[in-house]
Amino acid sequence: MKLATILLHDETISVLVDTGIQSVLPLKEAAAVRFGSAGDFPESVLEIINAGSDTANQIRDLAQWAETDETGRGLWVPLEEVKLLAPIPRPVKNIFCVGKNYADHAIEMGGPEDIPEHIMVFTKPPTAVIGPDAEIPSHTGLTDQLDYEGELAVVIGKRGTGIKKENALEYVFGYTILNDITARDLQKRHKQFFLGKSLDGSCPIGPWIVTADEVEDAGNLNVTTKVNNEVRQNSNTSHFIFSIEQMIEDLSRGLTLEPGDIIATGTPAGVGKGFNPPKFLKPGDTIEIEIEKIGTLKNTIVK
Amino acid sequence: MKLATILLHDETISVLVDTGIQSVLPLKEAAAVRFGSAGDFPESVLEIINAGSDTANQIRDLAQWAETDETGRGLWVPLEEVKLLAPIPRPVKNIFCVGKNYADHAIEMGGPEDIPEHIMVFTKPPTAVIGPDAEIPSHTGLTDQLDYEGELAVVIGKRGTGIKKENALEYVFGYTILNDITARDLQKRHKQFFLGKSLDGSCPIGPWIVTADEVEDAGNLNVTTKVNNEVRQNSNTSHFIFSIEQMIEDLSRGLTLEPGDIIATGTPAGVGKGFNPPKFLKPGDTIEIEIEKIGTLKNTIVK
Repeated sequence: MKLATILLHDETISVLVDTGIQSVLPLKEAAAVRFGSAGDFPESVLEIINAGSDTANQIRDLAQWAETDETGRGLWVPLEEVKLLAPIPRPVKNIFCVGKNYADHAIEMGGPEDIPEHIMVFTKPPTAVIGPDAEIPSHTGLTDQLDYEGELAVVIGKRGTGIKKENALEYVFGYTILNDITARDLQKRHKQFFLGKSLDGSCPIGPWIVTADEVEDAGNLNVTTKVNNEVRQNSNTSHFIFSIEQMIEDLSRGLTLEPGDIIATGTPAGVGKGFNPPKFLKPGDTIEIEIEKIGTLKNTIVK
Repeated sequence: MKLATILLHDETISVLVDTGIQSVLPLKEAAAVRFGSAGDFPESVLEIINAGSDTANQIRDLAQWAETDETGRGLWVPLEEVKLLAPIPRPVKNIFCVGKNYADHAIEMGGPEDIPEHIMVFTKPPTAVIGPDAEIPSHTGLTDQLDYEGELAVVIGKRGTGIKKENALEYVFGYTILNDITARDLQKRHKQFFLGKSLDGSCPIGPWIVTADEVEDAGNLNVTTKVNNEVRQNSNTSHFIFSIEQMIEDLSRGLTLEPGDIIATGTPAGVGKGFNPPKFLKPGDTIEIEIEKIGTLKNTIVK
């Protein structure tokens, strides 16, 4: 199923997106109608993730009811009438980001010597997170080299440390799309990647989280990034240097992963800096990242 | 004033530490007694910071009352009877850490070419935070090179972006001590510092936050780190390459700082890796970081 966060009548609520991607079901309202009271039904997508598999099953049941029951059918709201936010609008820690996880991208950023032998991890702060269709500030004056990076993002569903590759996928709640917007000049100037990766609005996430059961093999999904409809990145997660299972094993070695943690899995070749001359982002540019089985995350650069 | 977080009868509460550092005043309880009801008095130190200067003044007033009023005097609890936690036990994002901010430390980590021209920033996750006297896991098997880094930490009090050096100190709520425990082998192997800096328990913070009004010049404080009573680091924040004002200006350039954000300001020479042969940490070692006007943060390594 697809879980999203929307703004409806000035309230931030969690919804289920229907299979046809036409309408959304406000979950807490649906629970209240179905069960007479919403009780302690979780408010947010993050709380749903924290609540564990019983709640996920309850949501599947609610969805079925709302598709078949007459009262239930009346609860759906057309998707076009709501504003989608990032599925987790305010993560409770920085986003984990895996750097240079596709060989062709490592090479375009430098050369074959840049292909990492070991996983590289940096972070982006919660203040950088924005939702689908939200505007990305160009930060003119601070950077001349704003760049896009289309990435599959993994959402952790269960607390764990020392997780082994063999069991790693049990810890995955679902998947979404993340645009790792990067100020290349700041990234280079400050050596550690953090400052170049952390400008306000530099972490669009969405449009929703697709639960793991709907993604047969997250290690084999097409990833395409278009800027103003021009295809810039076109790859597949099968080209990961470090698999999702490996990332979870490496990250969780001595570091506790928690429900709601987000891991950006790296970007393939075709970023703006990889072109000669480079194709950096400018106000008015629209970036669309499409990932198979997940959807499309679209954002526009503003002045 | 000194604000701390303690565990008292299994409850996590915010307290004021008296000037003699002998006892603590549970703040919400004091407010309830003084005003008949605690009303919306903030629960946690983070909420106190978020609540702004009116609340800080209210706490100063409460403290005065509790020192002079007979009922008030009965509310203090001996410091030795309580367990201190990190002043903000669960920060709402990763800790910002400034790398190589003392020239002598940059040189001991490599050479003069390692003295940065621009601020370097990496992060440590909230899961790494532990309190005073808490045990630091040695992570035997994951690292052979666990190291200490004594640091002054700045706690942000006010939301801001594009903050200028001239106004930067207005954004500081107070100061505390942070031990930037680092697995040197992981730090080196994974290139970006994050993984080597983020093991569980690798971010002791405390013992309390001293509000900015009590620290005349945070750019001139002695910093001493002892391991098993042997002085390893002995410097002064006047040797910062980038001043606190500069750090805040550089960090907030396009990145919104928020109340409760913690900035670790870097460590001076004398880390374990700087010795020949290196003096890495082992189970049983006790690390004490003393910073003038703040206090002492002590932790022990366990197997």
